[in-house]
Order: sequence, then structure tokens, then C-alpha cells
Amino acid sequence: MTRWPFYFLASLAAMPLAARELPPKPSVADVIKASQASEWRPLDPASTLYLELPAGRVVIELAPAFAPNHADNIRALVREGYFDGLAILRAQDNFVVQWGDPDEANPRKPKTAKEKLAGEFTVPLKNDRDFTRLPDRDGYAPQVGHSNGFPSARDPKTGQAWLAHCYGMVGVGRDVDADSANGGALYAVIGQAPRQLDRNITVVGRVVDGMPLLSVMPRGPGAMGFYEDAVQRVTIKSVKLAADVPEAQRSKLEVMRTASASFKAVAEASRNRGGPWTKVAAGHVDLCNVPIPVRQGGT
Amino acid sequence: MTRWPFYFLASLAAMPLAARELPPKPSVADVIKASQASEWRPLDPASTLYLELPAGRVVIELAPAFAPNHADNIRALVREGYFDGLAILRAQDNFVVQWGDPDEANPRKPKTAKEKLAGEFTVPLKNDRDFTRLPDRDGYAPQVGHSNGFPSARDPKTGQAWLAHCYGMVGVGRDVDADSANGGALYAVIGQAPRQLDRNITVVGRVVDGMPLLSVMPRGPGAMGFYEDAVQRVTIKSVKLAADVPEAQRSKLEVMRTASASFKAVAEASRNRGGPWTKVAAGHVDLCNVPIPVRQGGT
Repeated sequence: MTRWPFYFLASLAAMPLAARELPPKPSVADVIKASQASEWRPLDPASTLYLELPAGRVVIELAPAFAPNHADNIRALVREGYFDGLAILRAQDNFVVQWGDPDEANPRKPKTAKEKLAGEFTVPLKNDRDFTRLPDRDGYAPQVGHSNGFPSARDPKTGQAWLAHCYGMVGVGRDVDADSANGGALYAVIGQAPRQLDRNITVVGRVVDGMPLLSVMPRGPGAMGFYEDAVQRVTIKSVKLAADVPEAQRSKLEVMRTASASFKAVAEASRNRGGPWTKVAAGHVDLCNVPIPVRQGGT
Repeated sequence: MTRWPFYFLASLAAMPLAARELPPKPSVADVIKASQASEWRPLDPASTLYLELPAGRVVIELAPAFAPNHADNIRALVREGYFDGLAILRAQDNFVVQWGDPDEANPRKPKTAKEKLAGEFTVPLKNDRDFTRLPDRDGYAPQVGHSNGFPSARDPKTGQAWLAHCYGMVGVGRDVDADSANGGALYAVIGQAPRQLDRNITVVGRVVDGMPLLSVMPRGPGAMGFYEDAVQRVTIKSVKLAADVPEAQRSKLEVMRTASASFKAVAEASRNRGGPWTKVAAGHVDLCNVPIPVRQGGT
């Protein structure tokens, strides 16, 4: 029996990696369960959109720290009922679902909102006051991490920070010109993170609930997944700001604070899973593989 | 006019990055269009599965170089009609769609195929004779690239190669034990590449056509996206080997050779997009963001 540790080490060296048993470790679910109430924050009703579809509600959290002008303009569009009765325009597999005005010939005009805005593709580093860096390396940016609930990237050399195109992130569709958009055409990422779009698009927020209502949209038959006929399109019932919805009808959701110790533990649980199911821990996690927990609760 | 270059350079330095115009470059579509016939290969009918669903056909290419025993056993399962009448078991958002036998209490027994196989999580480097390395760095593996149409990774230190869990890759569901599976439960990745599963699962192939038939499956209401009632499940009409299907009924598809010059150009078109839409080229591409082109054609 006393020889056991030696035997164990010798057999470890001889064993194929997959046969070694990893010690158990807390899972993401365990970390969430053990988290403190103070490690969660409610959504700000003034920066939360409800995209109401026939199948249910998609909840989007805006990121005014990264796109202040677009957040303002989207609030204005929403408050004038701009999106109500518009449609899901395209669903391209492994890419995006996009919504807006299907009538290209005679598009709806904003009443109070602006028709065009300068792109907010990056912001100065100082605007991103809540950055928590992920230690793992990234191919697309010198630094990546999370900024108050959003995956983000930064380059100290250029002094720029930006939101990263991870699954569920919401961006502003635009034409060729950088200033050709106003937030009236939005999309959510439904596949492998298209990080090549980072710094090319204004990213305005993240779907925090109801993502499956978008991700199962039938892929459109046209180029880039566009629906070609009106009958193929799902109509948007309305888009409202949570602040404008009676409290009883609001979605009660909390997001884990990404500067919290528990969120650090979520990243570690994603980076190095324990046994017994996992045989080889990755030792790394890509930015877009760190889940940003959302739970029912709060007011 | 002669001062133009100087003016141009000076204004470049003063301009925000997003305002600079990138020169146009061939897109992935341009590269495909300009490719040579010799840069494409047909699917091997002996390693091609047709998963026939009520909504249509999903075509899966097996990767026997990486999972020879599982490829053999899946062929045996298919030939004894094992999957016919089974079902889609789960659809977990941003993760996988899995199929197999929903009857856990009284599961279907293989007739000629094996009931359990040792996991083929990695193979010796020498088995992977078609590796073309991607120059871009990766967080999960020392080297990544493509092996005859499949995204793959390798570690020269351990002498191992393995397939990478990118969108559309097909893996073998297993229990806790590494040798608990036989290929009778399979899944396809429908979200952000879960690379933490690399080297923990036998990856057997890739969906080369019909991916949207899987990716739009309604997400299951149970834990891990499992469907809880039989009525929620889509029934599998059949799974057949292309070699066993009359030629006239086969899907005529070709995959771009990943060792070809055109595929290298596909990766470059993904890594550094040209203008005018793109304002900032990424200068990098993640393994799972390189499209592996498939086209109609061949016999």
C-alpha cells in the first residue's frame, strides 16, 4: 500500500492521456449555484428591448458604453413604434438572423429618430470602465475579456475597445458606407462567432433571453439567407423598451456580474473541466465559449 | 497631382482606421469561381451517410483516417438499419443536435455491429497524411489546419492528431467511460465550436450538406435540450450509406481539396477581407471560421 503513489505515477506516465482520471471540479452550474446575490445585477429597463415575435419574447440588453449614439437612436426608433409590424428579413445558417423593413422600394421613415449615424465600431479605452481581462490568448485581438456583461476586445496600442461578435451578440446592419445605418436593421449571431466583423460594424448589445426563438428560424432560400417572399417572413409584433412596459409584464432577469469572483470561476470551469466525464481538460477557453450566465430573478 | 501619394499617406495617418478604404480582394465566392476542377474531389460513397429526415436529406462525410473503428461500426449499424425509425433526441441551443434511440429502458440492440468500442479521441500523427497547416495561432492546440476536408489539430510533442469540434462536425455521444459508445448515438455541432470537447470524444465526420435541417430543430425543453415527449421528436426515416443507394438517387457533391491552392486562397479571403464593405481586415482567421467549400457536381 505504501508503494501506491509510486505505482500511480509510473502508471500515469505509461497510460494514454485519455485514460487518466481527472479530479472532479465545480461545473458552471455548480458555480452559479454557489454564487452570491451581490454577484448578479438586474437589467436596466432603459437599456433593455423586448422583441415580441409570434413565438415569444426575445430580450436584448443594449450596451450604451460601446454604442451610445446607436443605443439612443434605437430607443427613439422603438418609442416611435418603428419596428412594429416589420419582419425577420433573413436567416443565414451559421451566421445571423436579421430583422428590419422588408420593403426596400418604399422603406419606413423614422419620425423622430435619425436616418443615419456615424458607425460606432470602436470606442476609446476609457469608455470601457468595466473590462475584466480573460487570461487566454485570442487570435483576433491583443486583449479580450468581458465588459459589464458583454464580450469585448481591446488594443492598448490603438487605444480602442470594441464588442466582440460572439453567439447572441446584436449588431447594426449597414451598407458599404460606415455611416449608412441607424439601428433600424439589426441582427443576432446564430453560429460560429464571426469575429472578422469586429470593428467593422456597430455592435449594440446581446440577446440575454429567448435566443432559441431566433436561432431556429428557417434559413432563407435567397442569397445570404434572405427570405424571398412575404409569406416566408415572420412578422415582428412589436419592439418595446422594458421601461415602457408595465412592471408586471417585464421579464425578470439578472446577469452575472462579469467582474465578480463567480464569473472568474465560470471562465475557469469552462477552461479546465473536471472529471469524470472529461478526460482531457482544454487548458484554454476562447472568449466566445465563456457563458455569461443569466437567471430569472430580481425586479 | 504629383503630390497625391504624400497627401494620401499623411491623411491615412490622421484618419481613424475605419475610414480608410481597403483595396478590393477576391472573396471566398470569387476564389471558388476561379478554382480548377482538379481542386475538388467527390465524396467517397463508402464513407458518405444519408440521414433522411421528413424535411430532407442530411449528407455526412465520415473521416475514417481519424476514427477507423467507429467508421466501420457506423457502416455496420447503417447496413443493418439500426437508425431507421429512431429519432432526433435533443437540440441544445448553441451546442448540438443529437440522434439515436429514445428508448432508454429497452434500447435497440445492434445485430452485427459492436455494442462498445474503445474511444478514438486522437490518432497518431502518421495517420493524418493530408494535414495542411493553417498559419494562424489557435488557443486549443499547438497546430491546427485541415486534413482532407476536415478541420483538425495536432500536437507534435505528444504525437497526436485529432479532429476539431467546428460547426457541422459530427461526434459520437458517449457516457462517462471512454469506451462506452459505438456510434449509435451521434450529434452535430450547431453553435460556437465547443473545442473543449476535442480529444474527449470520437469525432467521426462532418455534415457536408443539409446542415440547416438540423440547426433549425426546435430546442428541447428538457435539460441539455432533450425532448421529453415522443411527440416532440422528429423521426429518422433512414440512414443509408451512399454506396448502398442507387446512383441516380445519390447527392452529387464535391468538396474542395484542402491541400489545394484555392483552399489556401479561401483561408486568406477569410483572414483578410478586402474593401469596400470591410473597413478593417482581421489579419487572422480562427480554424472554425474557414469555410470548407462544398458544391454540386461530380458523379
